[in-house]
Amino acid sequence: MFADVLIDRIKACGSPCIVGLDPNPALVPAGFLEQFRDEGEEWETTALAEYNRLVIDAVHDLVPAVKLQSAYYEVFGVAGAALLADSIGYARRKGLLVILDAKRGDIDSTSEAYARAYLHRDPPRPHRADCMTLNPYLGRDSLQPFVDACAESGAGVFVCVLNSNPGAIELQTRDLEGVPLYEAIAEIVRDLGTSLVGKSGYSSVGAVVGATTGESAAHVRGLLPRSIFLVPGIGAQGGDLATIAACFNEDGLGAIVSGSRSIMYPSVPGSPAGDHRASVREAMVRAAASVRSAIPKPTA
Amino acid sequence: MFADVLIDRIKACGSPCIVGLDPNPALVPAGFLEQFRDEGEEWETTALAEYNRLVIDAVHDLVPAVKLQSAYYEVFGVAGAALLADSIGYARRKGLLVILDAKRGDIDSTSEAYARAYLHRDPPRPHRADCMTLNPYLGRDSLQPFVDACAESGAGVFVCVLNSNPGAIELQTRDLEGVPLYEAIAEIVRDLGTSLVGKSGYSSVGAVVGATTGESAAHVRGLLPRSIFLVPGIGAQGGDLATIAACFNEDGLGAIVSGSRSIMYPSVPGSPAGDHRASVREAMVRAAASVRSAIPKPTA
Repeated sequence: MFADVLIDRIKACGSPCIVGLDPNPALVPAGFLEQFRDEGEEWETTALAEYNRLVIDAVHDLVPAVKLQSAYYEVFGVAGAALLADSIGYARRKGLLVILDAKRGDIDSTSEAYARAYLHRDPPRPHRADCMTLNPYLGRDSLQPFVDACAESGAGVFVCVLNSNPGAIELQTRDLEGVPLYEAIAEIVRDLGTSLVGKSGYSSVGAVVGATTGESAAHVRGLLPRSIFLVPGIGAQGGDLATIAACFNEDGLGAIVSGSRSIMYPSVPGSPAGDHRASVREAMVRAAASVRSAIPKPTA
Repeated sequence: MFADVLIDRIKACGSPCIVGLDPNPALVPAGFLEQFRDEGEEWETTALAEYNRLVIDAVHDLVPAVKLQSAYYEVFGVAGAALLADSIGYARRKGLLVILDAKRGDIDSTSEAYARAYLHRDPPRPHRADCMTLNPYLGRDSLQPFVDACAESGAGVFVCVLNSNPGAIELQTRDLEGVPLYEAIAEIVRDLGTSLVGKSGYSSVGAVVGATTGESAAHVRGLLPRSIFLVPGIGAQGGDLATIAACFNEDGLGAIVSGSRSIMYPSVPGSPAGDHRASVREAMVRAAASVRSAIPKPTA
């Protein structure tokens, strides 16, 4: 099951940090992009697929998983769907877990369709992920089909509980019948996750908790002791280390921390072609060291 | 701009009812599907594209718009993205507005990417819609990039305010600092929509309001006099006519009512090949008549 495999991989690579694969032609080094100009109509997504592979090659032994933000693939329509499948397949062949950051959630029959699209193993689909992110605004029964899919396929989900952007913090910390709104969502996450707790003690129903949320992050940690947190926020989102540390349990586990732009595009945009793989690896090593310094030593 | 064009089209065809295009091989008449078995690897999505075209042909003069539920396309990966683009293009060529029911919403840079994917006109993309649905759980700044895109491109959005499924009603009607949660979202929708009110008096920032939400629908109507409501709920979702009526203003306008399975698949699944186009048209005519009987006569 997802939670157990993820915890094993975190222990094996000695780091809870993951890289976000957000393909963006405006941020890929210009020299790298240029090499693909002659490769036909889809040269741009061909270049982005190769850059994603470069990033995966650079960090595959350092990270337990990669996170693909669906929006950056959807921009390219059909070619973007092919890019998504290519990067998912490549990451999996490199031994990485694949998290699709799609924040889906809808009425039951539609959530079932999304779960079929991304979590079910049968029939095999090249865009299947090991885990996806969900949005809880449509309530408990909008999340249930995904949890059912996890039970069947061994996949996982991260439900948005407390996000990193100012508008989310403003809304999600408002008082809902005596508790913050995020606590009401956390209660749903806890209930849904109970049946999917693995040998590791962690559930395959996790939570998205932003690294900018200060003391509220520690509050969510207390509410959801068995959920793994997906913590976006190294770099561009401005997360702070104290909040990141609060997302972990005392066993040094319980969270994965994601960085996208700061790791994937460490060079200045437009800089000349160089050893991008080494730069990406160095950015990942630094981010991981910085996070490791803040959290309890992971259980061996 | 979207709101004005939509109101014009509603008046022109004399109906606020739209059809949801949710391609589902399990519901397409078996005889229709069978015709495509020999059409190569992608025969299933080829068949679904043709069935969507059949539905569009059947109703194009009866409806102002079609709504495509993204999940039912994403299931098919690359072929699904091609199916989405085909159906969007065909609907537009038939003079219909295209609403993508995707319920997106994320941190600002990601919402910008989704808005680029589906709302911006430049560069032209075959999967561009005229309007998309949004999920507000990440707060005001997660919606702003879509509103900005609407201002630039003349597109529209419908933000989930009060959805039709039981879990949504349970969560969204809970008390948030003295008002139902949906009212707090409605306030954000009203603020965001102020700058996009057109000559029709309606804003291109609309709201999703379920047809199963009873008196709460009337409450939202009062909160958002200038927003058009997207009301899913004819047929399978069990909407009732009194609630649908409450989603309209006294001018007989202000809402579009969507039916998917009940209109698209009026026959019993597995039934023999027949005149599906006539059956779909009849289902649409009946649904429209039933809705029209419940609402104030539209302004001519």
